Amino acid sequence: MMAMDKIKALTFDVFGTVVNWRDSIAREAEAALSSKGYAIDWHEFADKWRSFYQPAMDEFRTGERPWVKLDTLHRENLLKTCEAFGIEGLGEAQIDDLSHAWRRLDPWPDAIAGLVRLKRKYILATLSNGNIALMVNLARYAGLPWDAIVGAEIAQSYKPSPQTYDRSAAVLDLQPEQCMMVAAHNGDLLAARSRGFRTAYVDRPLEDGPNKTEDLRAEHDFDVIADSFVDLAVKLGC
Amino acid sequence: MMAMDKIKALTFDVFGTVVNWRDSIAREAEAALSSKGYAIDWHEFADKWRSFYQPAMDEFRTGERPWVKLDTLHRENLLKTCEAFGIEGLGEAQIDDLSHAWRRLDPWPDAIAGLVRLKRKYILATLSNGNIALMVNLARYAGLPWDAIVGAEIAQSYKPSPQTYDRSAAVLDLQPEQCMMVAAHNGDLLAARSRGFRTAYVDRPLEDGPNKTEDLRAEHDFDVIADSFVDLAVKLGC
Repeated sequence: MMAMDKIKALTFDVFGTVVNWRDSIAREAEAALSSKGYAIDWHEFADKWRSFYQPAMDEFRTGERPWVKLDTLHRENLLKTCEAFGIEGLGEAQIDDLSHAWRRLDPWPDAIAGLVRLKRKYILATLSNGNIALMVNLARYAGLPWDAIVGAEIAQSYKPSPQTYDRSAAVLDLQPEQCMMVAAHNGDLLAARSRGFRTAYVDRPLEDGPNKTEDLRAEHDFDVIADSFVDLAVKLGC
Repeated sequence: MMAMDKIKALTFDVFGTVVNWRDSIAREAEAALSSKGYAIDWHEFADKWRSFYQPAMDEFRTGERPWVKLDTLHRENLLKTCEAFGIEGLGEAQIDDLSHAWRRLDPWPDAIAGLVRLKRKYILATLSNGNIALMVNLARYAGLPWDAIVGAEIAQSYKPSPQTYDRSAAVLDLQPEQCMMVAAHNGDLLAARSRGFRTAYVDRPLEDGPNKTEDLRAEHDFDVIADSFVDLAVKLGC
């Protein structure tokens, strides 16, 4: 294994890696909408909402659109999701509140236990596409013990653009090789590695429910491959 | 008293308000330099180093200089301080390490106890001129339980510029009146209030040692006036 002793910070993907967005969004959508008489498969609702995420990212990658924060994209994509399911008549405050369901996601069962151990040795930072307010509120909801929130809003750029990783390391005053990206997604780790980051893949087999077709396993020789955050802590000697 | 129930976040000045920079810098300078044979009043050294801070800020206020992070200014000002005391022959690594003394400052005795109570009810964010890496490392050194680090680096602008307060509230997704600035400095609070923030003055009579001539008391009708962070917690009902 490569020398790990230069690593000062672990930078985390959040949605899917730290928190279980699918079950949480299904729960939040049901809580908000079922009393209005909508009988929907709420996990399908969550999947549909999430399905608008990558196309929204693509608009930034191609330079079609100036950077806007993820809270805003979540709101736009919620409106598309409601339209797809024939949901109508929500007030602005209800739409705002349900948009913020992404601030109320449950951590995977091992996440807090692992983060607490990892924090003893490393700076823990989010390197997510989530904006600062989203990450702050999610951390308070879920009890995530971050030292710093870096990522898309700091960089004014979405992953996997190089700038997102470069700028995140820079504001932590670290060289890329002093940072280890932690994610359940091969693409995120490849992008981080191409900028000089160390990489840790954490397996999240349930992220997309029974339909998971991507990121079923680590597809590259990442520096660490773990099946939970506690396993990651053990493998990093925490 | 004004209605406090809209307040969602407390935003903190850090140097002087949360941490005791003067005694800590004196200790760090002595630890780094006394073994080289320099017999100096280390509190005078700390005061001299700090004395270059406001003139450095002025270069940004007048637009003479593009924004650079406070870590960099601390390093530049350390070199001036060493020159003033006739200290020579330090290596680059020693200068870097002593520059980072500002990442190793002790909290005032009441600070952690107060912050822990305040955090139950409010988002706690730094709104300091310190850059992100400086704030992250200081928080880990001193055990400061921040939810977010906003302020100068986020805004690319130093307090008391309006942009520093405006941008900090914006990235927290809050209106200014949902934020309460906490500081031991009248000027910082006046600047925050002029941008719509609520204000809390916390008395720090020992910040400048025996020579304190400014900010001896709250000089304006701030929303809260407290003599410690625990007192602030009590006054905010935490």
